[in-house]
Amino acid sequence: MIKRRQLLTGGALGAAGLAAGCECGVPAGLDNIAGAVRPRELKMVTTWPKDFPGLGTMAERTAQFISDLSGGVLTVKLFAAGELVSAFESFDAVSDGAADIYHGAEYYWVGKSPAFAFFTAVPFGMTAVEIMAWTEFGGGQALWDELSAKFNIKPFAAGNTGHQLAGWYKKEINSLEDLRGLKIRMPGLGGEVLRRIGASAVALAGGEIYQALQSGAIDGTEWVGPWNDLAFGFYNEAKYYYWPGFHEPGAQLGVGVNLDVWNSLNTTEQAIIKAACQWANNLSIAEYTANNADYLDLLIEEHGVELRRLPDDVIAAAAKAAKEVLEETAAADELTGRIFESFRASLAQSQAWGRISDEAFMAARRETFSL
Amino acid sequence: MIKRRQLLTGGALGAAGLAAGCECGVPAGLDNIAGAVRPRELKMVTTWPKDFPGLGTMAERTAQFISDLSGGVLTVKLFAAGELVSAFESFDAVSDGAADIYHGAEYYWVGKSPAFAFFTAVPFGMTAVEIMAWTEFGGGQALWDELSAKFNIKPFAAGNTGHQLAGWYKKEINSLEDLRGLKIRMPGLGGEVLRRIGASAVALAGGEIYQALQSGAIDGTEWVGPWNDLAFGFYNEAKYYYWPGFHEPGAQLGVGVNLDVWNSLNTTEQAIIKAACQWANNLSIAEYTANNADYLDLLIEEHGVELRRLPDDVIAAAAKAAKEVLEETAAADELTGRIFESFRASLAQSQAWGRISDEAFMAARRETFSL
Repeated sequence: MIKRRQLLTGGALGAAGLAAGCECGVPAGLDNIAGAVRPRELKMVTTWPKDFPGLGTMAERTAQFISDLSGGVLTVKLFAAGELVSAFESFDAVSDGAADIYHGAEYYWVGKSPAFAFFTAVPFGMTAVEIMAWTEFGGGQALWDELSAKFNIKPFAAGNTGHQLAGWYKKEINSLEDLRGLKIRMPGLGGEVLRRIGASAVALAGGEIYQALQSGAIDGTEWVGPWNDLAFGFYNEAKYYYWPGFHEPGAQLGVGVNLDVWNSLNTTEQAIIKAACQWANNLSIAEYTANNADYLDLLIEEHGVELRRLPDDVIAAAAKAAKEVLEETAAADELTGRIFESFRASLAQSQAWGRISDEAFMAARRETFSL
Repeated sequence: MIKRRQLLTGGALGAAGLAAGCECGVPAGLDNIAGAVRPRELKMVTTWPKDFPGLGTMAERTAQFISDLSGGVLTVKLFAAGELVSAFESFDAVSDGAADIYHGAEYYWVGKSPAFAFFTAVPFGMTAVEIMAWTEFGGGQALWDELSAKFNIKPFAAGNTGHQLAGWYKKEINSLEDLRGLKIRMPGLGGEVLRRIGASAVALAGGEIYQALQSGAIDGTEWVGPWNDLAFGFYNEAKYYYWPGFHEPGAQLGVGVNLDVWNSLNTTEQAIIKAACQWANNLSIAEYTANNADYLDLLIEEHGVELRRLPDDVIAAAAKAAKEVLEETAAADELTGRIFESFRASLAQSQAWGRISDEAFMAARRETFSL
């Protein structure tokens, strides 16, 4: 999870390159011809610093795709976190029409409703492919629409980080006992799980983590995965890299469109926004998979990082705590309860299918095959 | 894998509903305004029977998305297998311009080059997410472009079945010995692997499988997965459903555009086709995951299907044979060798990453967590 203050440090993002395409005047009377000829600039705010790999670039790509697909008839002016509004004001800005679209992660809006967490990632929840299945074909989108409509927003999936690792530790963790009392940087529901199993969960902005590790203020930290983690150099201070992560098994990024703006778009323009989000989603899963694999290799070969598996008793305790945390979250209100129930049912089915398909295949291949 | 003769049985597909949008005349002189105003109908041929779940509907969706995104300026007239040309003539039809686009699976074109198999699925190869990573960010697309350009075609990924199970068996397979001499329906490279480990691989069209199982002409069959398999009723004749599959761990569907047509499109039209394929790809992974999970539940709860894991010695022998088969395939020619090497390198990295991420997480979750 990316922490709030890190997100506020983004500089201005020039819209150059994002608003490519036709800026020329369009003859009057073409509004209804071919459904796409109505020049319009949409303001997109994001929760990411400019050029932030994977997350920020996915927002930039989504904006670019909208422009490309419309031949410049819809252009998107993109604002990095802090430029038009702060990262965490993005939701309100789109809700009240100060901006037209946001690109961010829905769990940043848990102050509006705890249910938003389910549309990004929850501890022991869904992988990237599983949350796509729930969102698109398991009833997730309709519930997400219902939730976001309360805030005058139309939401879409538009990216996924894939699996996030458990993070960097200064010392080996060989049992749950070793974790007790350690100060670990992990925000959100994952941090709450850590707290319940005896660690001290700390919320720190990305820019503060390295210093905190160096000074000994914290004993470990999670961030995202090999690709996004390498740049921070955590391996210099905490050489044990723990797997698997349990806190964000496939964090989905989200787009929100102001509902009045959405309803003012014609069907072609709506299709273009939906397609840009689907394109971004598809690409980001591919990109995180490819780059995490590349950077994992780098971390091991060039930086001497030591991979370690979380001990069984840590995983079991975290799973028990996660179930409690999720059930407590579900009890917040009626809609959150329905969203939880839909999520739970979809996850149960995906688990049964995953056991005999991807999980089993990957294990069998690992044990028997290399090219 | 879907067999040739099955594919030839598709009836005519009315293009109604696929060519929605503007059919009206567009004022002269608008060609270059907004980049998308140039009414044009593209002919899409497919290797799928009309309304074939997952595969055929994904071709229909891709066609619909192109029309939707262009506001009807590009419409796609879709021909099911056998309507304009037979399923396996789709490639030549697009290559020589008799059709503009095909939607199919690249491994159907191995008669043109054995390298095409790598862009769909090979035994012990890539999962859905892994082949996306290779295609989009691991060098796969550039090699695919090079291969297809030899045939005047521009290719795109446009769908994925996800994991395909090992299939239906009349009797339990408790060791490699039990497999010897059995007649199993499995075409392609997977069939070649079965042959090398002692079974008799049979190629039968989808419509012929049930009868062959009933008469005892075959002892088992693979098809796709729970969603596509249920309709055939294989469970009535072969109640053991084996996992994991090794022959097609994530079969990617493909679109090919006639290269002259592609080069005649403006950048907006090219972006629309690319987006339609990415949208279709994203949705089909979600759809197969959701529906396979649903239908697996149905097969077990309502049809008494018995799930069985392939024995270790069968998996190990198949893995050894698969490596031989792939290395022999790679030796066909220089370009196939380069494609194999790129595939191999990407798979090796994805395996290392998958081991500590999705595979490890799914195993940990299965062992410790249920909501």
